[in-house]
Amino acid sequence: MDVPRPGTNDRETPRGGASRYPKGVARRQEILDRTIEVFATNGAERTSLRAIADAIGVSHAALLHYFASREELLVEVLREDERVRGGSHDESEIVSVMLNAAERNVSIPGLVALYSTMLAGSLETDKTVSREYFVPRFERIRTMLIERISAGQKAGTVRADVEPEAMAALIIAASDGLQTQWLLEPKVDIAKSLALLNRILEP
Amino acid sequence: MDVPRPGTNDRETPRGGASRYPKGVARRQEILDRTIEVFATNGAERTSLRAIADAIGVSHAALLHYFASREELLVEVLREDERVRGGSHDESEIVSVMLNAAERNVSIPGLVALYSTMLAGSLETDKTVSREYFVPRFERIRTMLIERISAGQKAGTVRADVEPEAMAALIIAASDGLQTQWLLEPKVDIAKSLALLNRILEP
Repeated sequence: MDVPRPGTNDRETPRGGASRYPKGVARRQEILDRTIEVFATNGAERTSLRAIADAIGVSHAALLHYFASREELLVEVLREDERVRGGSHDESEIVSVMLNAAERNVSIPGLVALYSTMLAGSLETDKTVSREYFVPRFERIRTMLIERISAGQKAGTVRADVEPEAMAALIIAASDGLQTQWLLEPKVDIAKSLALLNRILEP
Repeated sequence: MDVPRPGTNDRETPRGGASRYPKGVARRQEILDRTIEVFATNGAERTSLRAIADAIGVSHAALLHYFASREELLVEVLREDERVRGGSHDESEIVSVMLNAAERNVSIPGLVALYSTMLAGSLETDKTVSREYFVPRFERIRTMLIERISAGQKAGTVRADVEPEAMAALIIAASDGLQTQWLLEPKVDIAKSLALLNRILEP
């Protein structure tokens, strides 16, 4: 996890640096990249803003220049991960889209744990930053799946008797939950379970 | 959340009290009951052993007499919740068992957030207490579901072309994930999604 990243040796504090594109942007990106590594190594409880600042070699104040709070930084890591993925438009069948995402997620150390930790936190009343991220995220994925399920029903590739809304929520839940189970018990087969879901959705 | 519980006014420290059955047992039970309330009110980050001790009106040391660490106490709350539920043997169809459990879980403030937080934590390498709870828990539920799915296939109520192992993991994942989605977005219908899963499992 301690692979050096570009810019790691550039240790001056970026006070006011965010406006000096592209240096501020590069530093911000470095913070996001290193945060997931610190999280994977330290776990949630020892991933404080201070621990991340130490790992990157910037001051705590410099970190706060880019991200207003620990919660904001951690949510931004998840947003960034979505942005990176957003570039590859996946035109394959419904459940394959989820399988591709799931297999990618479990391949990045700390990512599923970070996602799960932030998601669990978003269920708490004071975690508005997390909730403002997760509620629209789920809504977006549900909408994408509803469109694909409806299109599949019109094309005759998905059984006509499933309600797209209920099915979309189920597919997301299955994908999220299988990633956790697999990380705890490698004999759980994400691909096999999602393929099974795909098969029972056929007409 | 601040409903007084039996024994709340009994404030002497229970040093050595665990052996004086039933007083130690009652105090231990009180700690478990109040912990979930403190978690629901404070959230994970502010549910320290000290915060729980303050809420119950015992010393931090007294709390450590019953539970060796915060992680042990929080895992014990989940174990206790399973024990309470274990009393009611549910003979209904496969997915109904999960639906009954899911509906009960989301009705207890803080329970899904606590479960999700501890589960996310168990993905971190140093969280052995949590992992030693969740790995066998998932194994137990998968085994229970595999037996029911196999029995259903023999009885002709479940389609013969689903692999019981893959289906069991999928049902647990769906149930866990739907509880989270519903807490974030009440229009997500746990019952409808699980009923749909039930329906597409029919021969």
